[in-house]
Amino acid sequence: MRKLNEECGVLGIYDNDGLNVAHYLYTGLFALQHRGQQSCGIVTNNDAHLHQIKDKGLVSEVFNEQNLATLTGNIGVAHVRYAKEGDTSRENAQPLVSRYCKGSITLAHNGSILNANELRQELENGGAIFQSTNETEVIMHLIAIARTHTRSIEEAVLEVMGKIKGAYSMVLMSPRKLLGIRDPQGFRPLCLGKLGNDYILASESVAFDVMHAQFIRDIEPGEVVLIEEGGKLTSFKNHCGQKPALCVFEYVYFARPDSVIDGVSVYSARIEAGKQLAITHPVEADMVIGVPDSGTSFAHGYALQSGIPFGDGLIRNRYTGRTFIKQTQAEREMAVSIKLNVLKSNVAGKRIVMVDDSIVRGTTSKNLIKMLKDAGATEVHLRIASPAFLWPCYYGTDIPSREHLFAVRYSQEEMRKQLGADSLGFLPLESLHKIGLREDFGYCSACFMGKYPVE
Amino acid sequence: MRKLNEECGVLGIYDNDGLNVAHYLYTGLFALQHRGQQSCGIVTNNDAHLHQIKDKGLVSEVFNEQNLATLTGNIGVAHVRYAKEGDTSRENAQPLVSRYCKGSITLAHNGSILNANELRQELENGGAIFQSTNETEVIMHLIAIARTHTRSIEEAVLEVMGKIKGAYSMVLMSPRKLLGIRDPQGFRPLCLGKLGNDYILASESVAFDVMHAQFIRDIEPGEVVLIEEGGKLTSFKNHCGQKPALCVFEYVYFARPDSVIDGVSVYSARIEAGKQLAITHPVEADMVIGVPDSGTSFAHGYALQSGIPFGDGLIRNRYTGRTFIKQTQAEREMAVSIKLNVLKSNVAGKRIVMVDDSIVRGTTSKNLIKMLKDAGATEVHLRIASPAFLWPCYYGTDIPSREHLFAVRYSQEEMRKQLGADSLGFLPLESLHKIGLREDFGYCSACFMGKYPVE
Amino acid sequence: MRKLNEECGVLGIYDNDGLNVAHYLYTGLFALQHRGQQSCGIVTNNDAHLHQIKDKGLVSEVFNEQNLATLTGNIGVAHVRYAKEGDTSRENAQPLVSRYCKGSITLAHNGSILNANELRQELENGGAIFQSTNETEVIMHLIAIARTHTRSIEEAVLEVMGKIKGAYSMVLMSPRKLLGIRDPQGFRPLCLGKLGNDYILASESVAFDVMHAQFIRDIEPGEVVLIEEGGKLTSFKNHCGQKPALCVFEYVYFARPDSVIDGVSVYSARIEAGKQLAITHPVEADMVIGVPDSGTSFAHGYALQSGIPFGDGLIRNRYTGRTFIKQTQAEREMAVSIKLNVLKSNVAGKRIVMVDDSIVRGTTSKNLIKMLKDAGATEVHLRIASPAFLWPCYYGTDIPSREHLFAVRYSQEEMRKQLGADSLGFLPLESLHKIGLREDFGYCSACFMGKYPVE
Amino acid sequence: MRKLNEECGVLGIYDNDGLNVAHYLYTGLFALQHRGQQSCGIVTNNDAHLHQIKDKGLVSEVFNEQNLATLTGNIGVAHVRYAKEGDTSRENAQPLVSRYCKGSITLAHNGSILNANELRQELENGGAIFQSTNETEVIMHLIAIARTHTRSIEEAVLEVMGKIKGAYSMVLMSPRKLLGIRDPQGFRPLCLGKLGNDYILASESVAFDVMHAQFIRDIEPGEVVLIEEGGKLTSFKNHCGQKPALCVFEYVYFARPDSVIDGVSVYSARIEAGKQLAITHPVEADMVIGVPDSGTSFAHGYALQSGIPFGDGLIRNRYTGRTFIKQTQAEREMAVSIKLNVLKSNVAGKRIVMVDDSIVRGTTSKNLIKMLKDAGATEVHLRIASPAFLWPCYYGTDIPSREHLFAVRYSQEEMRKQLGADSLGFLPLESLHKIGLREDFGYCSACFMGKYPVE
Repeated sequence: MRKLNEECGVLGIYDNDGLNVAHYLYTGLFALQHRGQQSCGIVTNNDAHLHQIKDKGLVSEVFNEQNLATLTGNIGVAHVRYAKEGDTSRENAQPLVSRYCKGSITLAHNGSILNANELRQELENGGAIFQSTNETEVIMHLIAIARTHTRSIEEAVLEVMGKIKGAYSMVLMSPRKLLGIRDPQGFRPLCLGKLGNDYILASESVAFDVMHAQFIRDIEPGEVVLIEEGGKLTSFKNHCGQKPALCVFEYVYFARPDSVIDGVSVYSARIEAGKQLAITHPVEADMVIGVPDSGTSFAHGYALQSGIPFGDGLIRNRYTGRTFIKQTQAEREMAVSIKLNVLKSNVAGKRIVMVDDSIVRGTTSKNLIKMLKDAGATEVHLRIASPAFLWPCYYGTDIPSREHLFAVRYSQEEMRKQLGADSLGFLPLESLHKIGLREDFGYCSACFMGKYPVE
Repeated sequence: MRKLNEECGVLGIYDNDGLNVAHYLYTGLFALQHRGQQSCGIVTNNDAHLHQIKDKGLVSEVFNEQNLATLTGNIGVAHVRYAKEGDTSRENAQPLVSRYCKGSITLAHNGSILNANELRQELENGGAIFQSTNETEVIMHLIAIARTHTRSIEEAVLEVMGKIKGAYSMVLMSPRKLLGIRDPQGFRPLCLGKLGNDYILASESVAFDVMHAQFIRDIEPGEVVLIEEGGKLTSFKNHCGQKPALCVFEYVYFARPDSVIDGVSVYSARIEAGKQLAITHPVEADMVIGVPDSGTSFAHGYALQSGIPFGDGLIRNRYTGRTFIKQTQAEREMAVSIKLNVLKSNVAGKRIVMVDDSIVRGTTSKNLIKMLKDAGATEVHLRIASPAFLWPCYYGTDIPSREHLFAVRYSQEEMRKQLGADSLGFLPLESLHKIGLREDFGYCSACFMGKYPVE
Repeated sequence: MRKLNEECGVLGIYDNDGLNVAHYLYTGLFALQHRGQQSCGIVTNNDAHLHQIKDKGLVSEVFNEQNLATLTGNIGVAHVRYAKEGDTSRENAQPLVSRYCKGSITLAHNGSILNANELRQELENGGAIFQSTNETEVIMHLIAIARTHTRSIEEAVLEVMGKIKGAYSMVLMSPRKLLGIRDPQGFRPLCLGKLGNDYILASESVAFDVMHAQFIRDIEPGEVVLIEEGGKLTSFKNHCGQKPALCVFEYVYFARPDSVIDGVSVYSARIEAGKQLAITHPVEADMVIGVPDSGTSFAHGYALQSGIPFGDGLIRNRYTGRTFIKQTQAEREMAVSIKLNVLKSNVAGKRIVMVDDSIVRGTTSKNLIKMLKDAGATEVHLRIASPAFLWPCYYGTDIPSREHLFAVRYSQEEMRKQLGADSLGFLPLESLHKIGLREDFGYCSACFMGKYPVE
Repeated sequence: MRKLNEECGVLGIYDNDGLNVAHYLYTGLFALQHRGQQSCGIVTNNDAHLHQIKDKGLVSEVFNEQNLATLTGNIGVAHVRYAKEGDTSRENAQPLVSRYCKGSITLAHNGSILNANELRQELENGGAIFQSTNETEVIMHLIAIARTHTRSIEEAVLEVMGKIKGAYSMVLMSPRKLLGIRDPQGFRPLCLGKLGNDYILASESVAFDVMHAQFIRDIEPGEVVLIEEGGKLTSFKNHCGQKPALCVFEYVYFARPDSVIDGVSVYSARIEAGKQLAITHPVEADMVIGVPDSGTSFAHGYALQSGIPFGDGLIRNRYTGRTFIKQTQAEREMAVSIKLNVLKSNVAGKRIVMVDDSIVRGTTSKNLIKMLKDAGATEVHLRIASPAFLWPCYYGTDIPSREHLFAVRYSQEEMRKQLGADSLGFLPLESLHKIGLREDFGYCSACFMGKYPVE
């Protein structure tokens, strides 16, 4: 595992204009594919009849002209999923579809419920059965139960939000309604777009871009938006008002640079973080390079601030997947040598600043530094555009256990030696406030500080 | 739809001898494949950890050396499934696996629950969610609920049997137990076998044959057998004692001829039915032929009794599937012409008695009679080795709606004319008692008489 | 290897009526599938533009609605292929398509060229390259070379027939012509059918049946028929007049019973062979059974002649392929136990005559006899409806090397003991003349006698 | 078609050290995948026995652990292929394998033979047959013929080089030898690497990098290198000495930036071309952006020279293939909107210089300019890092017919208007000499000038 892993992307559309909803969801999923490559799915609602396709694999592998054509209807929900190690079963693919007392319910979920096990235990004690290990199924049960004594699905959802703790951005489809739901801390992003008379919900604003739709606004932490026929939108803010705790890593690594999340451009935040890194950890060098793809923007920022010219030092092969999809040691090793190659002619004889977004276990950085030196780099200074990871995440990021975290196991100088770097600098925690994030908002940096927003 | 359709086959093994359970289940599924070709699955239990593979397709398509190897464990349950038209989703493949308050539960089901909709409604009103349209999921919910206030899974099952009505033969696996369950009327078969110290449960005894295991006995209607570690077997007969109502069509068409069901050889029953047909509907002719494969045994019986020589008149192409797998009209028509061919040289100039097991819509029989006459048969006398279908089945056989049943729409003489036969004879209802079935048992013939054993 | 193996089936159509040629070829291939299950292919000719699909697998696996639709044109050639052990490469799938000096040439071949290696060597010495190990490619080269100095494709073919020795029944398609070619001894069958104004060529007449076409006649040994636009047919008999040597095993095992080959019904020949077996090897017994599927007709003949009633003793599972498709020992063993099951209730306590078509290695017969005795048969008398195999075949049948042939290694009494049979009888060589074959024709029985028609 | 298309990559290894040759070829193919995504293949030679796998699809799709394990041997040849529109048949996948008079011959080819049709005609007139439409098959025939009167394969190859005209870089494997062959003009690259005692041949030096092998030198235009057992290498320069004509587009677009071709770093050439563009077509602007991925290096060069800061304006989705793989208009349109997204927050209100490598039809550039302006760019100045395409290529680049070339159909001012750009500048032809290419070498720029090096 070279990197942290995201936890899914969600998408939903309520169409009133006769759009091909399945095709729009399909297009939107491509824009969200970086949030999960294990499985994906689309469920459409044709006058309360559901059509669904979900399977393991990339969007380009699961969907084709033939099966997309079977997904008729004017409301739809879609999902891309990252799966934790070992959890690759088809049963866990989303969106999750169930029948309950009021017809069907379809749920696409991004996040992690802290009290899922307790809730599951309680439900099982009452006679409930579970067919997957998805936390989504727990939420589904709670909603179905709440719905037996509430007047509407939105009321049931608001009740359930009082019971579940943790990170969740969800899109929910009932026979006639589409709901967007974001947890009170807003750990994961969720935003609202519009195309003609049709509302769209998505994890990131890039999904609207590819659909040529308009970004309207972010769903507020704690907010539920209800979309009904004819483009009617109602907002419920019963759970709003707590201190937000958006995951900082959405800016550092998870989100696409062309997304704007809770009012901040991901790209700008990365450029600024690169600049801060140059300010706090300057060095004399000949060239700044980034570890592609995610390190590149930070490297540009570092170069702009430091005046050291940016250059390409590592070339990424575009015909392979992300490293973390590989699951055996052998596959991982082969993948590294295939995936990144040193641009020898541009590196030889130079003092290099190599900028990356984060360090998890340190193995990739170590390999890259060795490759650069083998290619003739005289010095390699490693700059990391985020503080060091020290604590586990309980809100949906798949961080290795503490004893595997590089920065937990070693002091900074030990790390530098281990990596073979000539110097090593992390973005200081206090610099996180200077990369353009909002003063009037809140961010979760528990993985750096160990101070958790919930529980 | 040329024929009636079966509703699944079930299988279970509890091994104490170190057998490769998955391989035995795989082999056994081949022997039960005639009971369902839509999907199949195996679930194994390795010290309470479950491994499962299930998918659409034949046993030979779904399983291979690689995926079988992942199915470790010493208890296992397997299923082949026939699906009603339109219900081809992967979600409905069995065995159904759930987690509940006491760990996992795995269920393979053959049958049809009459009050499934009412029970589902009741469960939904209590907040339950359903992820498939399988009746099996309803049973699973009831067991999970019953288990919250009973001391064991077997107690829970016995309680649930008091609530569900209809046809069910099931194999159930809990973390440490294997159960065989048969409804009080015993509509569908279920029997017990043994291999060394290991008990096996199967829909039909042929499954034991291919495993080189021993047939022990049939599970009684209403009986629950519990198999535990070390080859311990306990029988619960709380629900026994009602009049059995085994489906007569198991003998006429569903079961394999080499199976022995509730003490009666399927093959013998077919030979005897053919003889009865010859007694009740004699005719002067040159040759008796069967409609392969299922009509052949009846034809042999007819030939033996009548003294008219048996001969082959229709040759079946072994490289195509059963007609009813085809789902569009175009596929069905092509399938007929590919599947059965007239043996012209043996038919020309002869008066033929053609014996088939049953008539559903009459289209196939009509085609075959025309083909025989085109090939030079001077007369074709159609003999049907079962009474005419007049009523729907509620116990797991997929009969078309009444208005499509040939014998409902037409009088016997109209049928004969429609079919182009020179004479037409059905096995009389009263002759069913003379084909070797047990005096001390009971059989369901609701589809012929409209007299239903339950409800 | 339980059985001898066939060597392919060929098919060709020249349409003048606007038929969907690809669909007819597809349907016809199903009827010829028993002649080869390794790979199959269809090539169509749309105004001299070729479209082709060929791959490993059964007809039902290789073709589907989508790919069939791409096979446009009014002339077409098709092939099913049996492949010798180890030769499973896609490169060898047929029909073989080449471009040569006069455009394209497409060839579907059934047989075996005796001097293929010499011819290949000669061609290679002249600078030729070969992309497959198919003998068909050798023929293709020879035709292309002959075409450089002849005035027509038919002239070239007739010239090439003077060079190649052995067994070949072929269908050849040039940009505007369709040819049927049969070697001078006529080792393998080839016949002519008609549908409206369209001529059809096929290995066996069953292909015409499924197309609802008319059988016209067999192609004579040595004959070439040329089919051209508008239903024009020309026959070239330059190579006719030699003593025919049709493979006897076409009647014994290879062909479908509903085929009529060179004027003789395969089914009748089998019934007669069964009768001859009863005359030459009578025995006192209670029931005659056949080894399904191919032994059944012989058993019927034996029963008719002997007066011992026919019965079913072995039930074949229709959901598995032919044994010889399995290629490892483990697969073969599993396949046996899955494929044939003893009908215990019908066998117990009886003296059985078990009739099979032939014995290759003896392993299957031995297994079956043991299974019958285990099921309670008091005696098992094995009757083989062909003489014992003693010699290799050079004309397209894949017989194991001599040292593996059962009848070569053991005396008849040793064989009986090895098999565990109570008696053993082969059809005497002289009885082959009494099974209804033509007096005015010739047959190859080299595998029994070692007397080879060519070379 | 947005871009020019490459024509394949070739690879070969002769191992003496016990390497897993198949695995090295597999790894190397990943590094060459950018040269062709239609099909790929590997052929290995185990003591003169060949093993091969080739199919349509990417390297990651065609090969897996299982099938790679079957590719044993110590010599091997591999290929990735770009296919011209419509030519997607599996038959044309390479390497091409044939048997000829001296055993087997395996050929992997990159290029285009100008007189292929004449040579093919001549061969066909002599009786040759062709099974593909690959020019490679023509070369194969010529070598087989030459081999009948030469003493070695290398002699045969040298003779054939006297007959074929055009572009070819090839790797050839005979039972005991591996040859690298480059045409006298050296249109396409080919280079030699070494790993321990093992020689490697590859289209681009990046293949050596991923194998951790050493780059030795380029194969000279006209040179043949012969690699034999024990690491013996012999060079034949019979056809050397003509004026080289390496395709300039290898630097502009085809090759990977981390490759060094004929002594020149592709990356440096691109940076220099960007600088030249800034010198010849300066403009006042706020930000320089590249069209990813291939335009980015040029943009860096432009930024360095002009002093205008580089920034990201277009974000590429890494989860889609290259546009030109899409083959229908609908797929192309969807692919554009999915593939590149504008980074609005970084573009709005700015005057943009957008740098791309080339313009073929102009449609993509037009779309991108519109997208940038819609996102708020106040000006978009398009800079193209190569001269305008005016002439067809006969040496292996798949350029559309002249009437579809943007620069042929319109004047520069018309182009600018059509594209909606505020200014438009192409790299002047004379600047091509200033991007660091070798004075002592020669380059083909026929597509810009219409002056063809051959014929």
